[in-house]
Amino acid sequence: MTVLVNNVLVIGAGLIGGSLAKALKERDLTTQIAGYGRRRAQLLLGVEAGVLDIVAENLELAVAAADLIVLGVPTLTIKEYLPLISENRKDSCVVTDVASVKGEIASVLKQQLGAVPSWFVLGHPIAGSEQSGITASDPDLYIDHKVILTPDDNTDAQALDLVESVWKAVGAEVVSMSIEEHDKVLAATSHLPHALAFTLVDSLAGLESNQDVFRFAAGGFRDFTRIASSHPVMWHDIMLANKDAIISVMDDFRNTLDQLEGAMKKDDSEAILAMFERAKAARDEFSELLDSTTKHAHVDAGEE
Amino acid sequence: MTVLVNNVLVIGAGLIGGSLAKALKERDLTTQIAGYGRRRAQLLLGVEAGVLDIVAENLELAVAAADLIVLGVPTLTIKEYLPLISENRKDSCVVTDVASVKGEIASVLKQQLGAVPSWFVLGHPIAGSEQSGITASDPDLYIDHKVILTPDDNTDAQALDLVESVWKAVGAEVVSMSIEEHDKVLAATSHLPHALAFTLVDSLAGLESNQDVFRFAAGGFRDFTRIASSHPVMWHDIMLANKDAIISVMDDFRNTLDQLEGAMKKDDSEAILAMFERAKAARDEFSELLDSTTKHAHVDAGEE
Repeated sequence: MTVLVNNVLVIGAGLIGGSLAKALKERDLTTQIAGYGRRRAQLLLGVEAGVLDIVAENLELAVAAADLIVLGVPTLTIKEYLPLISENRKDSCVVTDVASVKGEIASVLKQQLGAVPSWFVLGHPIAGSEQSGITASDPDLYIDHKVILTPDDNTDAQALDLVESVWKAVGAEVVSMSIEEHDKVLAATSHLPHALAFTLVDSLAGLESNQDVFRFAAGGFRDFTRIASSHPVMWHDIMLANKDAIISVMDDFRNTLDQLEGAMKKDDSEAILAMFERAKAARDEFSELLDSTTKHAHVDAGEE
Repeated sequence: MTVLVNNVLVIGAGLIGGSLAKALKERDLTTQIAGYGRRRAQLLLGVEAGVLDIVAENLELAVAAADLIVLGVPTLTIKEYLPLISENRKDSCVVTDVASVKGEIASVLKQQLGAVPSWFVLGHPIAGSEQSGITASDPDLYIDHKVILTPDDNTDAQALDLVESVWKAVGAEVVSMSIEEHDKVLAATSHLPHALAFTLVDSLAGLESNQDVFRFAAGGFRDFTRIASSHPVMWHDIMLANKDAIISVMDDFRNTLDQLEGAMKKDDSEAILAMFERAKAARDEFSELLDSTTKHAHVDAGEE
């Protein structure tokens, strides 16, 4: 394939940034990929594993040389890098991120730079894994997975085009929506389920009989609670960054749970059965939708 | 292997009863396995698939001939068979069941027969599958899975011994506990998670944007909600049959959820992080426990 973009800098090269880097490198889509992050040993392992070409030693110089910067750090950490990027980037440099909450990033950009700059394309790949770290990078992670971009009227058309091309080139399906819609949809499909899984496991771990509880749990429990093994700091950030949208779907959930409990207390057989049948129909429909769009089977229980 | 029991009758031969039947047949542990159920066509398929030897045409005669009767019907259906079994069984015939709620079965037995009879061994295999029906029967389903028996002082020692031997012979690990403990533990590890999965999917399906919600959901959501595809009638039965124990853990869950939502509203970063870290530690510990006890990897998301 032809080179899409020359110098790429991935800041915070974990699984998500690393997998994008490795996918670009394997497809010869860039001339050089540099990685920057706090854990230098991890980055060196990334170079060894063929994920990165080089480790960036000086962030200012690396930013100045980059044609595309990918911010792979957790949601609430992005703000620490924005001033330096804004001051050192060359005019043609495009910046994108992979954070799970777009409203928070947009408001940090507005606070620090007055607006979401035309050169910053907010993005979020709907992919991930229970594994983390650059050494778990998978160049096929994005194949047949969705990447949501949330551009606005101010976004530079060429910048948007570059970010779209990069994601498509590594196999992803690119979808655009507003920041508000993104944050609402992700609150429902990802953030709330993670909150519920953490809540259930914490609640059971607090029972006196918790040893028995875990000893006699089987596959259903394992699947249901797998996402409670996700990164606590990352999910803490998300809970705060997308607080309003999450609380809104959490309240819907609680109302539905209250209805179920009420029906159980009244022995309202019909209401319980109707609810379970509606849920099963919706879940089965979702399975079909998922099967039809995802040919690639990934364990991606830990995605943001 | 030597024959453990001559004539076995499985009433309600679905996945659970069928898998036990097939496991016994493949290991030559019985002389004959008969199946009885409402859906005759399914039973005939079971004979074709080598799960059953014969289809019982007349339930009274089949009960009279049986040395071991396995009740594989849903929790709230068992009571329909008890009078006929009690009247027609021979003195040496042992009866067991596989229902998810033991207290309900015990109280039906007390209502109908004055007590849990000495020849009835209450049991519950912790295994299952999203698939259902006799044709999905898997002779290895119980290998390295737990089977919980809840005998009491009145239980005949030979009857208990037979049921234990049968389960061990098909690869299961047999554990005994009280009815109350069983129902509490299962409420926490199985019944509540199923209630939450049904609740979440029903709650999201009710959102205006439900199409988008399901379209942009990924693997974490799929795993978290898989159990919402389980059998609505079976789970309806369980919700009512184990109501008190489920409502008790549901209330614990709701209190923990309220704490999380409260912490989010107050931006109490420390409380959120502490909760997620506790949950991750407990879930990771559970993973190790599960890995160490379950060498056989089954998809058993639908177990009762």
